[in-house]
Amino acid sequence: MKKSIGILGGMGPMATADLFKKIVDYTAASKDSEHIHVYIDSNTDIPDRTEAILRGGKDPVPEMVGSAIRLECMGADFLLIPCNTAHYFYDKICAMVHIPVLNMLEETALEVKRQNINCVGLLATDGTIESGVYDRVFEKYGISVLHPSSAGQKNVMDLIYKGVKAGEKDIDLAGFNNVLEELKRKGAETIILGCTELPIAFETYNIQCKNIDPTAVLARSAIVYANGKLRNYSNPF
Amino acid sequence: MKKSIGILGGMGPMATADLFKKIVDYTAASKDSEHIHVYIDSNTDIPDRTEAILRGGKDPVPEMVGSAIRLECMGADFLLIPCNTAHYFYDKICAMVHIPVLNMLEETALEVKRQNINCVGLLATDGTIESGVYDRVFEKYGISVLHPSSAGQKNVMDLIYKGVKAGEKDIDLAGFNNVLEELKRKGAETIILGCTELPIAFETYNIQCKNIDPTAVLARSAIVYANGKLRNYSNPF
Repeated sequence: MKKSIGILGGMGPMATADLFKKIVDYTAASKDSEHIHVYIDSNTDIPDRTEAILRGGKDPVPEMVGSAIRLECMGADFLLIPCNTAHYFYDKICAMVHIPVLNMLEETALEVKRQNINCVGLLATDGTIESGVYDRVFEKYGISVLHPSSAGQKNVMDLIYKGVKAGEKDIDLAGFNNVLEELKRKGAETIILGCTELPIAFETYNIQCKNIDPTAVLARSAIVYANGKLRNYSNPF
Repeated sequence: MKKSIGILGGMGPMATADLFKKIVDYTAASKDSEHIHVYIDSNTDIPDRTEAILRGGKDPVPEMVGSAIRLECMGADFLLIPCNTAHYFYDKICAMVHIPVLNMLEETALEVKRQNINCVGLLATDGTIESGVYDRVFEKYGISVLHPSSAGQKNVMDLIYKGVKAGEKDIDLAGFNNVLEELKRKGAETIILGCTELPIAFETYNIQCKNIDPTAVLARSAIVYANGKLRNYSNPF
């Protein structure tokens, strides 16, 4: 019996669409009914997570909990949160629902271990980096996490906020490419696309670099958890 | 004040993902909160619409109504149904909810008139073609609708069911291209992609032909209806 998926989304909406598309795309199905039932709340009223964590901005937890409860009421058997920074509030969301919430960061750490990688470079928002959410999860698995320099981090934020979130199709990538070089030089064996807008940026701006996409990892974990059938790709990450 | 959108989806799930992505992509927004709140029920338990209309297959209305009511309960202010064939049951869905349901076929007819087109070629499932749903709506606006020959119609169904719905990336397009030629020869000024899997087919298989995509039309109408801001494209159809 297949379980149904609830996506607590809107952080941002394009990342939500990306996760949903990946779930459909990675499911082995020859007709509609072989796909997994998915409920989505793309709640664009959830306040900015980085603002809340670093600068005392409005607390996103009440809106996130509202969405989580709505999805549980709809019939979702478990939840996904396609926003890395939002995982800072993971425990608070879990406490408010009666269904499991797959943890995107834990699933990504497991994928890093499967690939026998011990040192990663992390691209993420200021909120994700400074709150240390990735570092804490990856430390449990003995994985070292390298961060960009503070100048480099500004380029990452610009790519996310002035590029993807602003829907800008034409941007200068020179600074961002330096960040990738810098992380490789310091010893990163792969790059974690630790903000759900980054896989979209890599596709939109055709950025080439070995990476692990947590959205893709979460999509595949969710299909397995839902008792769906995974399509046989050589390496979708 | 922006209204929220409910998408009664799963017919199929990839078409639902396509509509959601188009809504996000066509919205002029520089941050999450400027996007529209979207609720989605990608209900893959809805029985096949063509089977029900033509061959006495299981009635899809109860599952569709269940999804519509769940979306209304979630808080959706109006509904969209990203499946052309499902519009055969449009009145039955409208009767069961207290919120409006935008009609994709009506919106498409209005777009055809805006483009000063009087004769279209219709690509759609057997269920959509034989039930005459498009013909009835377009007739009100004085638009002639041409259908493929019965041999050509089989090629259209293969593209939808053996191509997109089966997730097949590599298919032979010779027969399908003959259908496009045939419709043009008979006088079609444009082609209506009258199955929500067809815009995906045109993109996936890189099919080049002047067309109107009802999913794109519906996405733009929904943004306007929701009091969102439309991004300024030259011609997204």
